[in-house]
Amino acid sequence: MYMRTQKINTRRILQTTLLMMILLMSFILPASAGTIEDNTEAIENLQIALTFLWLVVAGAIVFFMHAGFSLLESGLSRTKNTVNILMKNLMTISFGILIYWAVGWGIMYGADFAGLIGIDQFFLKGADHEMWNGWWFQMVFAATAATIVSGAMAERTEFKAYLVYVVIMVAFIYPVYGHWVWSGSGILTAGFLVDLIGVEHHDFAGSGVVHAVGGYAALAGAMVVGARLGKYRNGKPMAIPGHSLPLAFLGTLILAFGWVGFNGGSTLDANDTYISFVIVNTFLSAGAGAITVMLITWIKTGKPDPSLTANGLLAGLVSITAACGSVTNGSAIVIGIVGGTILYAGVMFNENILKVDDPVGAIAVHGYAGSWGLLAVGIFSIGIGNGILADASYAAEGAGLIYGGYEQFLIQAVGLVINIVWAFGISFVVFKLIDWTIGLRVSEEHEIAGLDEIEHGINAYPEFVMVKE
Amino acid sequence: MYMRTQKINTRRILQTTLLMMILLMSFILPASAGTIEDNTEAIENLQIALTFLWLVVAGAIVFFMHAGFSLLESGLSRTKNTVNILMKNLMTISFGILIYWAVGWGIMYGADFAGLIGIDQFFLKGADHEMWNGWWFQMVFAATAATIVSGAMAERTEFKAYLVYVVIMVAFIYPVYGHWVWSGSGILTAGFLVDLIGVEHHDFAGSGVVHAVGGYAALAGAMVVGARLGKYRNGKPMAIPGHSLPLAFLGTLILAFGWVGFNGGSTLDANDTYISFVIVNTFLSAGAGAITVMLITWIKTGKPDPSLTANGLLAGLVSITAACGSVTNGSAIVIGIVGGTILYAGVMFNENILKVDDPVGAIAVHGYAGSWGLLAVGIFSIGIGNGILADASYAAEGAGLIYGGYEQFLIQAVGLVINIVWAFGISFVVFKLIDWTIGLRVSEEHEIAGLDEIEHGINAYPEFVMVKE
Amino acid sequence: MYMRTQKINTRRILQTTLLMMILLMSFILPASAGTIEDNTEAIENLQIALTFLWLVVAGAIVFFMHAGFSLLESGLSRTKNTVNILMKNLMTISFGILIYWAVGWGIMYGADFAGLIGIDQFFLKGADHEMWNGWWFQMVFAATAATIVSGAMAERTEFKAYLVYVVIMVAFIYPVYGHWVWSGSGILTAGFLVDLIGVEHHDFAGSGVVHAVGGYAALAGAMVVGARLGKYRNGKPMAIPGHSLPLAFLGTLILAFGWVGFNGGSTLDANDTYISFVIVNTFLSAGAGAITVMLITWIKTGKPDPSLTANGLLAGLVSITAACGSVTNGSAIVIGIVGGTILYAGVMFNENILKVDDPVGAIAVHGYAGSWGLLAVGIFSIGIGNGILADASYAAEGAGLIYGGYEQFLIQAVGLVINIVWAFGISFVVFKLIDWTIGLRVSEEHEIAGLDEIEHGINAYPEFVMVKE
Repeated sequence: MYMRTQKINTRRILQTTLLMMILLMSFILPASAGTIEDNTEAIENLQIALTFLWLVVAGAIVFFMHAGFSLLESGLSRTKNTVNILMKNLMTISFGILIYWAVGWGIMYGADFAGLIGIDQFFLKGADHEMWNGWWFQMVFAATAATIVSGAMAERTEFKAYLVYVVIMVAFIYPVYGHWVWSGSGILTAGFLVDLIGVEHHDFAGSGVVHAVGGYAALAGAMVVGARLGKYRNGKPMAIPGHSLPLAFLGTLILAFGWVGFNGGSTLDANDTYISFVIVNTFLSAGAGAITVMLITWIKTGKPDPSLTANGLLAGLVSITAACGSVTNGSAIVIGIVGGTILYAGVMFNENILKVDDPVGAIAVHGYAGSWGLLAVGIFSIGIGNGILADASYAAEGAGLIYGGYEQFLIQAVGLVINIVWAFGISFVVFKLIDWTIGLRVSEEHEIAGLDEIEHGINAYPEFVMVKE
Repeated sequence: MYMRTQKINTRRILQTTLLMMILLMSFILPASAGTIEDNTEAIENLQIALTFLWLVVAGAIVFFMHAGFSLLESGLSRTKNTVNILMKNLMTISFGILIYWAVGWGIMYGADFAGLIGIDQFFLKGADHEMWNGWWFQMVFAATAATIVSGAMAERTEFKAYLVYVVIMVAFIYPVYGHWVWSGSGILTAGFLVDLIGVEHHDFAGSGVVHAVGGYAALAGAMVVGARLGKYRNGKPMAIPGHSLPLAFLGTLILAFGWVGFNGGSTLDANDTYISFVIVNTFLSAGAGAITVMLITWIKTGKPDPSLTANGLLAGLVSITAACGSVTNGSAIVIGIVGGTILYAGVMFNENILKVDDPVGAIAVHGYAGSWGLLAVGIFSIGIGNGILADASYAAEGAGLIYGGYEQFLIQAVGLVINIVWAFGISFVVFKLIDWTIGLRVSEEHEIAGLDEIEHGINAYPEFVMVKE
Repeated sequence: MYMRTQKINTRRILQTTLLMMILLMSFILPASAGTIEDNTEAIENLQIALTFLWLVVAGAIVFFMHAGFSLLESGLSRTKNTVNILMKNLMTISFGILIYWAVGWGIMYGADFAGLIGIDQFFLKGADHEMWNGWWFQMVFAATAATIVSGAMAERTEFKAYLVYVVIMVAFIYPVYGHWVWSGSGILTAGFLVDLIGVEHHDFAGSGVVHAVGGYAALAGAMVVGARLGKYRNGKPMAIPGHSLPLAFLGTLILAFGWVGFNGGSTLDANDTYISFVIVNTFLSAGAGAITVMLITWIKTGKPDPSLTANGLLAGLVSITAACGSVTNGSAIVIGIVGGTILYAGVMFNENILKVDDPVGAIAVHGYAGSWGLLAVGIFSIGIGNGILADASYAAEGAGLIYGGYEQFLIQAVGLVINIVWAFGISFVVFKLIDWTIGLRVSEEHEIAGLDEIEHGINAYPEFVMVKE
């Protein structure tokens, strides 16, 4: 009989029967231990090979997210700045590879100094297969954090100034905070803070490490570089529509696809059956985020807004990135709904209150929804070893507020404060220094002419007739 | 303690310790039979982990097909309706996730009632890793069936009416038929029909379950909503060219890439070596379909037609989706040739005889080629256990017409009739009900203005000058 | 001996021997060897399943590179020839599938005749799962070599003439050279040349087999078909800008993503932990290539050139494709830097000295950087079994020039000469024959009107107003 889902069950029954037969035989007969060890070793090698392979594939899928960012950001920019933003994204990954190899990895995962920073393994010195494998998967994350910034600063930032920032981001800003959370010996998962509060900070796949760091760095950058010409007239924000919605939507879907690698890969162990659970929570939150923003914009303006809705999907994804291995399906949906709401509120807040000009909404998607993601762990975490997390290995230690725990929420909040202070603070300083030295912003004349023409001497669509401004 | 990179090290230390303990024990004890069992269990876990991982990846690749559908459909629509069709696709997957989680999965794979419908597991109640894993892979299929409809109804269907349909499709229409074929206890693989004919209906990866259901629902929708303004003049069909062939071609290639997950994943078992065979047949049929349509259009019009040829590739893929694990390479090529021919004939039939307006050719690609795919099993099936299918586990039970069997063809034909009656019938009723209540079609004025402007207040390409109509 | 497809067989023989030894022991010893053997067999099956699955996925990722080529080539062409180049790419893969199934595989991997050519396994006769699996992964490579040519000959080549060439390329030109390098019994890895020099030619994933073959075929094609109208005025090259940089950049990033499958899959063994090492080297070279070309163009013209920089990334990837499993990380970076430099110099050389018109830079990217990739093995190879390659199975045999070896360099140079003579020579003859019989180039009138209109009766962007030429 052809049965699509019941197949594995049947196999399991057969295997259990077989296992019981083997057990019986093992009482009757003695055994040949030599080949047992060979098998054990072969099994161990297979487990390692499976994990290595999965992280190669998951890393590839995350690498492809750079195509997603390229399209989302260029689609939401104007034609005169299209090639410039594509180039910025291409060079982010190109520099990201070399810099995270030379410096970033060592700072993040090298031998710990005082819980603050890694101090060896630069240039992947002494690397074995495990380190190469780990580097590939971590590198694509580092480059993601960096590329978030490019979108928020699009259409008016000097190309070379941006490159200088990327190098500093991938070499230092990202890996230092990453060390605090993901190295196993950083201040947020070991030492006095953890002793004090009683549980470790939990950020499964990087709502904080990747997205909030990128988002607050983007906020700093957007503030220092200032709004685009024409964005504010008499203090009121003007709409500057993106030049190609198909590119933006394709970018969004590539990013969503990428999240399979981003969250799914972050168990760092292909033998961990929780990967499926992680994926389900991830996409429930994504769907909830998109639908929420669609409804909000529909109610507010009478029309469901496409680019905000696409950003709602991304906000759902960012929001669940820390918590996806620690919460129920139902909680994942709530996290996505709140994440979508925060995206909408955040975009309005940036545009109308902060008066920060973010052409693609990156600050709200990654910074604000990422912050929510960190707190959401503290609210919805089941607590490792409880309920459906009975045998989980990658979940938040403590139970969240809705289950009566408060320690996890506390350490999440502490981590968030540290995240904002670090990512915003140091980025603000770095952008100011860049501005004072080599100059962060193109001239007014150049901004009007467009960065493609001025910085690259090229036209994204040379054969198409454009509307006069 | 949560350690991202040191996890494997820790495991290694544990495993090395374990290994050393085993080695020690092997000197002390005459035999350690216990470790045989450990190995057997570890092997079983690896087999499961491999399958889970493969379905996560295959599901991701199928998820990415939604980008393919988005681009194919928007590329073949006009600029004024581009964002609308992109939004419909984005919301199809967003609603698809939530609705298939809440309702669809339970209807399709919940405990069987009378061979007709599943009645539990709503909201994935009681899910374990296997159910989460299965849900992810099945959910992306459910959303695919739904999204087929959006293309055929593009450029004149109300956004909210479409959303209502999507919810009904994913919650009920798709999973009910899916239950009949893929649950293992539905009427087409168990019970009196199967007893009567002697073999089970076979639809490996969904020529019928996904494509024909989507295609006939699309036919019903396109009939109820009517042709676009200007499509017929004095009863003669007019060409309304798509606005961006690059988007359509990229969409086609993304869909072809997606078929690796779609068909390859459908053994539902990564340990099944037939996956490679399935992939080879899939792409032989795809190539044959494209070449066939290229030649037909070349002969008929003197020029090889690009968008029909791209649809020919897709028709080849749809045609082989049911049979890809049951037929020889040579048969796969024949199936693709016939599939391509049917695509061409189907498009001509819809346009000139039925007078149904399908902007993207979805009805012919998915409905007609999908129907052919079901019948093709009955014609070309080797029969499980025969020849190259000696040790196959996922193939059609009976031999096809060319091998002298008739039972398989019979049950395939019966399944096809049920498919058409169900998918077309209930969709027709649903679309009529939607039309009578909230209205299925936009006003004439709005259709002329374009759905992007009217329904979303946005312009897909605001800076580009368009040709006056 | 480096054998691409026979690897698994060797392992199988070893494993069979092992199994027979275990079987023997089970007769001698009283133990319950039966279940140990069951485990050993299950482990072997898992190892095979893992490799099969990986090559299915890696092949899929390489398949997707055809979307990358489609976009890169159409993005760098003009709007009037956009659909034509998309169709050429689609038909390349469609014909590639059928022709490599019917003929190409047999020529490349069939039983060897005199080290020159394979002579059986046509139509995959007698295929088992391993052959189907191998075919899928090899087929996507064959189609890649063919599609490289389409870009260099874009905008003026007859559609049907190109199709004839594709068939010959996939059936004969590519697989013959592939047989010489990858079959395990070809002249470059067995027989008198190898005996003479002392080591085998090494081309891990195809700097030579795929890229240089494609690149020199492209050079022949571009020479025979001649430059586009307007490319040279009074012998001076004119810039003809591509019509859509976003398509070109997306294509570039899809290709880079594809390289994970291209190089990562080429160990042909998922249990080989060197995959991670291969990936790291691949992307270090890619990043170095892009940065190098960015800097060169910046220095030369004052502005970093986007399309050359994107080609620099690809040149880095092509350059490292032969050497990625044989060199240190540092060498990989140097290989990328030189590869990028060669790309730039090669484009200038083609345009100004050779006066060959290559709209997309394919000859420099694939031909020249591919040539460099072959030589780079001879310069930077660590030599299998040395240093970090202590337990490697897929690396160049001999040490390179920088480690004091010269044999590897010699055989790499010999292979390169053979590659150029074969790929350029036979392609030149084939293109001349096509030109004399059916005609290679469209008429001047048709070239001015554009191939989309003339050959396909279609317009890529019918609603957009274009700039008058």
